[in-house]
Amino acid sequence: MKSAQYLLLPGPTPIPLRVARAMDRPMINHRGPEFKAIIEEVTAGVKQICRTQGNLLIYPSSGTGGLEAAVVNFISPGDKVLAISIGVFGDRFAEIARRFGACVEKMEFAWGSGADPEQVRLRMEQDVDQEIKAVLITHNETSTGAYNDIKKIRQAMGGHPALMLVDAVSGLAAIELRMDEWNLDVVVSGSQKAFMIPPGLCFMAFNDRALETQRKNLNNKYYWDVSLGLEYLAKGQTPFTPPISLYYGLQEALRMMLEEGLDSILQRHTAYREMVRTGLRAMGLELFTADQYASNAVTSVRAPGGIGANRIRKYMLDEFNTILAGGQQNLDDAIFRLGHLGYIRELDIISVLAALEITLVKLGHPVELGAGVREAQQVLMRVHGDRQK
Amino acid sequence: MKSAQYLLLPGPTPIPLRVARAMDRPMINHRGPEFKAIIEEVTAGVKQICRTQGNLLIYPSSGTGGLEAAVVNFISPGDKVLAISIGVFGDRFAEIARRFGACVEKMEFAWGSGADPEQVRLRMEQDVDQEIKAVLITHNETSTGAYNDIKKIRQAMGGHPALMLVDAVSGLAAIELRMDEWNLDVVVSGSQKAFMIPPGLCFMAFNDRALETQRKNLNNKYYWDVSLGLEYLAKGQTPFTPPISLYYGLQEALRMMLEEGLDSILQRHTAYREMVRTGLRAMGLELFTADQYASNAVTSVRAPGGIGANRIRKYMLDEFNTILAGGQQNLDDAIFRLGHLGYIRELDIISVLAALEITLVKLGHPVELGAGVREAQQVLMRVHGDRQK
Repeated sequence: MKSAQYLLLPGPTPIPLRVARAMDRPMINHRGPEFKAIIEEVTAGVKQICRTQGNLLIYPSSGTGGLEAAVVNFISPGDKVLAISIGVFGDRFAEIARRFGACVEKMEFAWGSGADPEQVRLRMEQDVDQEIKAVLITHNETSTGAYNDIKKIRQAMGGHPALMLVDAVSGLAAIELRMDEWNLDVVVSGSQKAFMIPPGLCFMAFNDRALETQRKNLNNKYYWDVSLGLEYLAKGQTPFTPPISLYYGLQEALRMMLEEGLDSILQRHTAYREMVRTGLRAMGLELFTADQYASNAVTSVRAPGGIGANRIRKYMLDEFNTILAGGQQNLDDAIFRLGHLGYIRELDIISVLAALEITLVKLGHPVELGAGVREAQQVLMRVHGDRQK
Repeated sequence: MKSAQYLLLPGPTPIPLRVARAMDRPMINHRGPEFKAIIEEVTAGVKQICRTQGNLLIYPSSGTGGLEAAVVNFISPGDKVLAISIGVFGDRFAEIARRFGACVEKMEFAWGSGADPEQVRLRMEQDVDQEIKAVLITHNETSTGAYNDIKKIRQAMGGHPALMLVDAVSGLAAIELRMDEWNLDVVVSGSQKAFMIPPGLCFMAFNDRALETQRKNLNNKYYWDVSLGLEYLAKGQTPFTPPISLYYGLQEALRMMLEEGLDSILQRHTAYREMVRTGLRAMGLELFTADQYASNAVTSVRAPGGIGANRIRKYMLDEFNTILAGGQQNLDDAIFRLGHLGYIRELDIISVLAALEITLVKLGHPVELGAGVREAQQVLMRVHGDRQK
């Protein structure tokens, strides 16, 4: 018998039964009162998760669609843009801006690290003529397992009037983000991550300062046009037919999230990270990202010498029905990644570490069975001890 | 007890149990072999439904996203475009082209009718310098219940080299469309119509002639960029995370469709249309669209004198839990629309006609109870008789 799959990807993430059941309901009129009640509830809910009182639109699209929406609404062709990149998704955000005619200046940091706020400060101070219209940044860099300290980087911008656009597709609700308090102008996220529903929805939150810019924006747009979205939202509708089943799922997932509380959700993800990192280190594995930058959502591990990461992933899949992510681009076969995001059971992390120990032994890397598991147990015991206090 | 809802919208349409069950499966890796098998199966399946051997891409979006994809890939800013409109969705297609910088010439026909091929022929002949780069047309005009004879209109273009872009979002698999045989260059459709799955996916089929144009296209694009989509499709993937649960549904729905056979599906929709129109006429109601243009997917009815369409819709909803669509824009309260598209049971149409008769009597319009039902039964008996032969 093949057991049910352990899905340790940084998205899509497992779907809770409550959410799956909620999605399995008949279609309704998307221009009727039932849908109006749903869109109002979920819009308010996602705003709570973003910690914003600003504007929020939900699009039928993948997370990348949300990045495109941010670019075509809030950046005009010819605008100078500072795109901070620490990996594949930072590069993607920059590429989208470039495709839509922005003059993109990239500020790159080594993969596996986060951006240095000091360099951002220097660059913004240099820009005395305030030519830079927007700063693009990734919250959680899924390709490496590093995150950016968005609060510090925003502070480093000082009084510079550039908008800050944050790709929080995989980070929101796993790593702290306080949109209003930190003065973030645009925050994009997606459904298949910490929101625990299947892919197909993206969220874009934006403040009134961003909206003011949008009124003068010169990009051609229709599907992503924020003006259309806001006009229909005021009526409790969307401009185009919404993915109704995913809205059902979102409604239920948000109820679960708000029952648990955002602070508890963030603590739970921090505990995942600590279990995974402590366990992996106890197996003698090298982590790709330093503690300082380590993401709550995904952990990258260097494959031990002589054993390719893809052989480890294949063994884990074939023998334990466990899906790990591979390295992207230059990191292919050099690293593998464990996603620990969304609806993950803490004991499943123990199971996966146990399976990985067996896999490493089988593939010739010396590991004492139970070494990683035991350390992860210690973390888990401490977490539960803290909760009992 | 409130009975389960009768959903007679021209989308979203009811979801078959087989499809709902298929969607309720755990998430998988969208870069793995399981998803590759699914995307290959569904891509081939949707191509069969379009009757094309050309290219096909599936986007995470509503149908309007597909129209935007068609415009930004196959029309360049400054291109002259002939946009044929017979209602709200024809206007929308024209508006999208205008937003992306095309010089749009609109050719409008009265709402409730289809386009006149003769006028298209004259206009294309006039264009001796071949300035028109594309013709935009709606297959089924959801707002009025009229359809365009796409085959004749394509023929009317004669040897003119303009591309023909067809919005078949609500018409495909309900009204005949033969992409390759009729030489259509781009065909767009959506999941929440005859495909019997929830909204959230759109389909864009395009031939190699369109693809050649795309290589020289000048629009800024990323999310909708056909080059990216084709590059990933060759690997059995999508550029961005696909809505996995909707793919599960599409796979199952296509299996159902191909089991039934496309010709049978089209005949079934023709039978829906005949039952509805015959039944409504027997109630003394005036149909908004002449027989010649009458759509297989949706029927528009003028509200009888003195009774607003929205009162009828409200009574049907409150008393019979039956959802009918209203009139759009100028037709609000003047007409109501019955969608008969996708997974509709023929006996449900009898039920809805029976409910409508009661509603009309209650609201003061003289109808002999059973008059419409009986005529629809006659149609149904004939259809079954034909099938038995």
